[in-house]
Amino acid sequence: MKILDVLFGKPLPSFDERAEQIGPSAGIPIFGLDALSSAAYGPEAALTLLIPLGLAGVHYIVPISAAILALLIIVYFSYRQTIDAYPHGGGSYTVASENLGRMPGLLAAAALMIDYVLTAAVGISAGVGALISAAPGLQPHTLALCLGILVLLTLINLRGVRDTGVAFMIPTYLFLGTLMTVIALGGWHALASGGHPHPVIAPPQLPAATEALSLWLLLRVFSSGCAAMTGVEAVSNGVMAFREPRSKNAKLTLTIIIALLIILLAGIAWLCREYSIGATNPNGPGYESVLSELISAVMGRGIFYYVSIGSILLVLALSANTAFADFPRLTRAIASNNYLPRVFLLRGRRLLYSHGVYALVGLTAALLILFGGVTDRLIPLYAIGAFLAFTLSQSGMVVHWYKKGNAHGRMLVNGIGALATGVTTCVVLATKFEEGAWVTALLIPLLIVIMFAVHRHYERVARETANPDPLRVAGLRPPLVIVPIDRWSKISEKGLRFALMLSPDVEIVHIEGEDEDPGSICNVWEQMIAGPIREAGLNVPHLERIKSPYRLVIRPLTDYVLEQEAKHENRQIAVLVPELVVRHWWENLLHNQRANALKLFLLLKGNQRVMVINIPWYLNR
Amino acid sequence: MKILDVLFGKPLPSFDERAEQIGPSAGIPIFGLDALSSAAYGPEAALTLLIPLGLAGVHYIVPISAAILALLIIVYFSYRQTIDAYPHGGGSYTVASENLGRMPGLLAAAALMIDYVLTAAVGISAGVGALISAAPGLQPHTLALCLGILVLLTLINLRGVRDTGVAFMIPTYLFLGTLMTVIALGGWHALASGGHPHPVIAPPQLPAATEALSLWLLLRVFSSGCAAMTGVEAVSNGVMAFREPRSKNAKLTLTIIIALLIILLAGIAWLCREYSIGATNPNGPGYESVLSELISAVMGRGIFYYVSIGSILLVLALSANTAFADFPRLTRAIASNNYLPRVFLLRGRRLLYSHGVYALVGLTAALLILFGGVTDRLIPLYAIGAFLAFTLSQSGMVVHWYKKGNAHGRMLVNGIGALATGVTTCVVLATKFEEGAWVTALLIPLLIVIMFAVHRHYERVARETANPDPLRVAGLRPPLVIVPIDRWSKISEKGLRFALMLSPDVEIVHIEGEDEDPGSICNVWEQMIAGPIREAGLNVPHLERIKSPYRLVIRPLTDYVLEQEAKHENRQIAVLVPELVVRHWWENLLHNQRANALKLFLLLKGNQRVMVINIPWYLNR
Repeated sequence: MKILDVLFGKPLPSFDERAEQIGPSAGIPIFGLDALSSAAYGPEAALTLLIPLGLAGVHYIVPISAAILALLIIVYFSYRQTIDAYPHGGGSYTVASENLGRMPGLLAAAALMIDYVLTAAVGISAGVGALISAAPGLQPHTLALCLGILVLLTLINLRGVRDTGVAFMIPTYLFLGTLMTVIALGGWHALASGGHPHPVIAPPQLPAATEALSLWLLLRVFSSGCAAMTGVEAVSNGVMAFREPRSKNAKLTLTIIIALLIILLAGIAWLCREYSIGATNPNGPGYESVLSELISAVMGRGIFYYVSIGSILLVLALSANTAFADFPRLTRAIASNNYLPRVFLLRGRRLLYSHGVYALVGLTAALLILFGGVTDRLIPLYAIGAFLAFTLSQSGMVVHWYKKGNAHGRMLVNGIGALATGVTTCVVLATKFEEGAWVTALLIPLLIVIMFAVHRHYERVARETANPDPLRVAGLRPPLVIVPIDRWSKISEKGLRFALMLSPDVEIVHIEGEDEDPGSICNVWEQMIAGPIREAGLNVPHLERIKSPYRLVIRPLTDYVLEQEAKHENRQIAVLVPELVVRHWWENLLHNQRANALKLFLLLKGNQRVMVINIPWYLNR
Repeated sequence: MKILDVLFGKPLPSFDERAEQIGPSAGIPIFGLDALSSAAYGPEAALTLLIPLGLAGVHYIVPISAAILALLIIVYFSYRQTIDAYPHGGGSYTVASENLGRMPGLLAAAALMIDYVLTAAVGISAGVGALISAAPGLQPHTLALCLGILVLLTLINLRGVRDTGVAFMIPTYLFLGTLMTVIALGGWHALASGGHPHPVIAPPQLPAATEALSLWLLLRVFSSGCAAMTGVEAVSNGVMAFREPRSKNAKLTLTIIIALLIILLAGIAWLCREYSIGATNPNGPGYESVLSELISAVMGRGIFYYVSIGSILLVLALSANTAFADFPRLTRAIASNNYLPRVFLLRGRRLLYSHGVYALVGLTAALLILFGGVTDRLIPLYAIGAFLAFTLSQSGMVVHWYKKGNAHGRMLVNGIGALATGVTTCVVLATKFEEGAWVTALLIPLLIVIMFAVHRHYERVARETANPDPLRVAGLRPPLVIVPIDRWSKISEKGLRFALMLSPDVEIVHIEGEDEDPGSICNVWEQMIAGPIREAGLNVPHLERIKSPYRLVIRPLTDYVLEQEAKHENRQIAVLVPELVVRHWWENLLHNQRANALKLFLLLKGNQRVMVINIPWYLNR
C-alpha cells in the first residue's frame, strides 16, 4: 500500500536526514535533552516522598541517589554496546522484535508508546511546575497552563519544525551552565562553611517528621527517583544522525550526556542535604520546585534565578517536544508492520505522520487532565514504560550477542543491564502500583490486544484480495443498467444519457404511490424518452413501474435490483442514481440522501455484482 | 418530489384516519384536552402577577377572569363559523394563506410552530409544577423532571402511538370530574358559609401588599390569564375526524368544550377569592400550585387530592402530547409548499414525519432549559403565538365571507373576533415584551426569513433542473474511463473488468514515488493485464505512470483527470475507483478514504462531464 503512504502536501525532510552530519556538541542537546532535563523532576519526585520524614528525609536522598546513579552507569555500559551492535539505530522496538520475536517486540512497542506520551506530559507539567515556583500566583491555573503549552507545542509541530537544532542548543547549554554554576558555587560554600552553608534565601522550613523510615518507603523513593533516568536511550535510537565514525561519535556523546547527568543528580542530591532543602507539597499552595529552592538558596532571586528558571522551563518543554518527534516515528514503524492503522503511515501537509501527532496530543491531554497537570502524580506511571523498554532492549541484546557467538563479555554486560533494569521495573511496578502504575499496567496489555486485532484484520484483507491469476477477460459484456427516475428533469436526462452510453440494456424504474403524480415520468415517457430513442435506432429501455402503497422508495428499489441480479447471473448490474449536488453544506439539509441510502442498502445486502453509481448533476454557483 | 415523501418503514395510519368516526364524547378528550388543561395554568399565571397586591390581588382575579371569558366567548362564535366554512379542517395556516395570501400565511405558520412548541413546554412544566406541589421535595429537580417527561413523550411517540383515544379519555374525564367536584363542593361551602368558607387545609398566608394597583398591572395580569385560552382552535383543525354530520358534531363538541372551560375558569377564579388563595412564588422553595392549594382547601389531602393532582399531571402531559401530533403535521404542510426542508415530508419507520418530532423535541428542550422549566417564565412567550394565529385565522375568515358575498352577519362575527384577538395580541406583546414575549417576537420573523430562504432555494433548483426538451440522443459514445490502480489484486481486477465492460477507451493511472514498490502494478503489467487483453483482441489500455516525488495521490490524479477532460471536450470522463468495502464501521478506521477524497476534490472542481464511480469490493463476512 506504499502509494497510500502520503495524501496531501509535501512532507518535511525527516529528522535524521536533517541532522545527518552532527557531532557530539550538537548531539548533546538533540539527544541529551530528554535525559538531562529529567534531572529537573527526578530528584524532586524522590524528595516529595521523603517529606513525611522531615529533616531526616533530606539526608536519605544522598544514598538513594547513589543507588540510582549506580543503575544509570550499568545502563550506560549496556547502551554503549547497543550502539556498537546497531549502527543504524537500535530502538527498543527494533532490538526486541529482531532478537526476542513478535510478542516481546509488541510489548516494547506498547511500553515505548506510553513512555513517549508520559515524556510529553511530565515534561510539560514539570515545566509549569518551575514556572509556578517563580510566580506562585499561577498555582491555581496549573492545568490550564499545561494544556496551553501542549497546544503551543502542537501548533509548532503541525506547522512543521524546520530546524530544531539551534532551538535545542541554546536552552540546553543555558540549563547546563546555570545548574553547573549553582552546583559549583553551592558546593564551594558547603565545603567552605564546613557543611553548614548559609542560604541567600532560606528554603521553606522542613515539616516535622510524621513517619518513621521503612524499607518500603525507601523503595518507593528509589522508584520515583528512577524517573531521572528516562531518556537515556535516545542516543542509541539515533546513531544514524552522527557523522562518521558514527558509533564512536555516538558513544562519545552518550558518555558526555551520562557524565553530565551524573554530576547534576549527585550535585543536586548533595546540596539538598547541605542546605537541607526538601520538597514542598505539589498540590497545596505555596508549592516551590526543589531546583527553585536550591537556586535561590545559592544565588538569591536575581537575574540569574530567573534566567535559570527560564532555561529549565524551556528545556522541559523541549523535552516534551522530543516526544513529538519520536512518537509519530514509532507509530509509523509499528504501522508499517501492520500492527497499527495505516493512517499512521500518512504524512501531513507540513509534517511527518501527523496522525501520530494527533494521537500523542490526545493521549497527553487526557493524562494531563486526569492528573491535574501535577508532575508528582504522573511520575508513578512514567518509569514503568521506560524501564520495561530498557529491560526488553537489554534482553534483546543478550540474545543478539548469544546468536553472534563468542561475545560472552558483552553478553554479560547486557545481561547485568537487563537484570538490573528488570528488577527495577518490578520494584517500580510494585511500589507505584496503587499510585498510578496500574494505569500503565492496564494500558500496555490493552494496546497489545488492539495491535493484534489490527494485524489480524490486515492479514485477512491481504489474504482475501491477493490475486495470483492474470486478468479474466472472459464474459466481458456491458452491464445491465438500472436507472430509477422520478420525473423528467435535466438531472434525470444526464443520468439516462450516461446509462445509454454504458450499455444497450437499460431499465428505468419508476416508483409510484396510490395518487398519481402529474409530473411523473410515465406521463411524458413516449414523448420525452421512448420516442427520441426509437428514432435514433437504439433499443428503447424497459420502463418498470412499481406501485408502492406507502410510497417507500428504497425497499422496493432494492428488491427489484436484487431480483434482476438473480435473473441475470454472472452479469454486472449497475444502478445509476442521478442526483443533485449542491454547493454549500447547508443545502444538503434541503435535499434527500437517497443515493447514499440506496448504496448503504445494497451494501448491506452485500453483492459483488451490484454497484451503485451516482451521476452528479451540479447546481450552478 | 412526491416519490421522496417516504423513506423507510411503514407509516402509521394518520391521526384523522384513525379517528374517522368519533362523536362528541370522544371528541372532547381528543380535541378539548389542550384547551381544558390550560385551566390548570391560566388562572395561576394571572394570580402570580397579583402576588404583590397581597389579599387585594385575589379579589381582582374575578373581574379579570370575566374579561378573559368574554374574549373566549367571542372566539367561540368565530370558530363555530370557521367549522362551517372549512368542513375539511381549517387550521390558521390554511385559512390565512387561502384568504390573506402568502405572507400572512407564513406569519400564521411561524406563529403556530412557536405556539405548538410552547404547548409542549408549558404542558410539561405545568405538569411538573403540579407534581412538585404534591411532593415539594422534588422542587430542586424541576428541570430534570421536565426533560425526563419530554424524553418519555418522545420515546412513546417515536415508538408510534397506535391509539391515543383511551389514553386521552380516562385522564381527561378524571380531570374534569375531580375539578368539577371541587368547584361544586367549594361553591356550596362558600355559599353556605356566607362567603367565608373554612378551608380543610389553610392555603399559605398571603404576603402583605407591596405594590399599588395600576392599569398596567391589570393588563399584564389579563395577558397572562389569556394563556388559559390556548388550544381552543383544535376542533376547527380536525373537523374531518368527526362522524357525519361533521360540522354539527364538531360544533357541538366545541360548544361543550368551551362551556366546560368557562365553568372551570369562572369556578377557579371565584373560589380563589372566597378561600383567598393566591399564587406562591414559582421559583422560591415552598412553591405550591394554585389548583393544589384549592383542592386541599376544599377536600383536604386525602386520596381525592392525590387522584386529582395525578389527573392534572396526566392531562398536562397529554396536552403536551397533542403538540407531538400537530407540530409534525404543520411542518409537513409547510414543507409540501416548499417553505421548509423536505425532510419534514419523510415518514419515520413507525410514525408520521419523524423529523417534525425531532424539531419539536429539540426546540422544546431548548425552551425548557432556557427557562428552567418554570411555567411562569414560559407563559409570556406563549399567548403571543396563539393569539397571532387566532387573529390571522379570524381575519382570513372575514375575507372568506367577503369573497363569498352577502354574509355580512358572519363577516361581522369574525370581524369582532379578529378585532378582539388582534387587540389582545398587541396587549400581550406590549405587556409581556420584557418578560419574554420578545423571544417570540424575534423568533417569528426569523422563522419567516428561513422559510423564504428555503423556498428560494427550491425554486432555483426547480428552475435550473426543469427540462422542457426531449432526451438528446446525439453524441452518445462510451465515456473515457480512467482507473487508478496501485497494485494487482482482486480489487483492482474487478475495477478493471468493469472499466473494460463500459468502454473501449480505458486508461490506467499509476502513481509512484521515488523508491519503486516491488508490488507495483507496473512490474506485472504485461503478464497480468496487457497480455490477456491483447490475446482477447481488445485494445490494450494505456498505462499512465505519474511520478509523485512525495507520493501524493489525490492531487496528481485530479490534475491528470482534468487534463484529459480538457483534451476530450464534450465527452464524459468516468473515473473508476476500485475500493475495499468493509463490514464494520470500525474497520473503516483501518482503511483510507481515498475514493471519497477524490470524489470531493473533483466535486470542488465541479465539472458536469467528470464523474467518480466507486467499484466496491466486499470483504467476506
